[in-house]
Amino acid sequence: MHPRSAIVLFAHGARDPEWAEPFRRIQDRVAAERPAVAVLLSFLEFMQPSLANAVEQAVHAGARDITVVPLFMAQGGHLKHDVPHLMAELRHRHPATAIRLAPAIGDVAEILEEIARWVCREHPR
Amino acid sequence: MHPRSAIVLFAHGARDPEWAEPFRRIQDRVAAERPAVAVLLSFLEFMQPSLANAVEQAVHAGARDITVVPLFMAQGGHLKHDVPHLMAELRHRHPATAIRLAPAIGDVAEILEEIARWVCREHPR
Repeated sequence: MHPRSAIVLFAHGARDPEWAEPFRRIQDRVAAERPAVAVLLSFLEFMQPSLANAVEQAVHAGARDITVVPLFMAQGGHLKHDVPHLMAELRHRHPATAIRLAPAIGDVAEILEEIARWVCREHPR
Repeated sequence: MHPRSAIVLFAHGARDPEWAEPFRRIQDRVAAERPAVAVLLSFLEFMQPSLANAVEQAVHAGARDITVVPLFMAQGGHLKHDVPHLMAELRHRHPATAIRLAPAIGDVAEILEEIARWVCREHPR
């Protein structure tokens, strides 16, 4: 497959390999929904591949259009400082590829709404 | 108000005060949905109150039934090791209060589904 576009999910990473499972489930779900798009999962620390390696892999596979989606609940030091720096580097290294950055999960009203509904379900009336 | 039950949301915390905003939005949404329940937000590190302080506050306000909801994307070291230890301490300190622990966000199919739908919306076809 030579996908013309790619989605690179970007999660924090952790020492425990099980930590990545929900992110792999999101990756599978997105890949099923978008069969013509390469859907990769990458990590900031502790796990591989890095964001840079995943983007490189997507570019080599033929992607000319990449969306990086940070799967972080909220905008903290990582998203505010590390990610803009990483994005600048990626754009510099791959000038022929359009690399877009999605917002954080915590900026998406529908997701916060779904989380709030679940919290209510978890607590008996 | 003397709520008989409480929901204590539990997030990681960060140095940047803005980081807590999505969690406060979830707190507000849950509080609006459950006006008879005390809805508190607590943190593992960097931010106040701690989980122990928030539970103490709920117990002192009259709650006899508390659900602790960890707002962590996935089960890593914090949820697997720190939280069971914190829960055991809380139950020991408040024997007359039923303290329940909800699973992590990443274990909830509806939330992963909503995140996957959003990822697809973020990437142009």
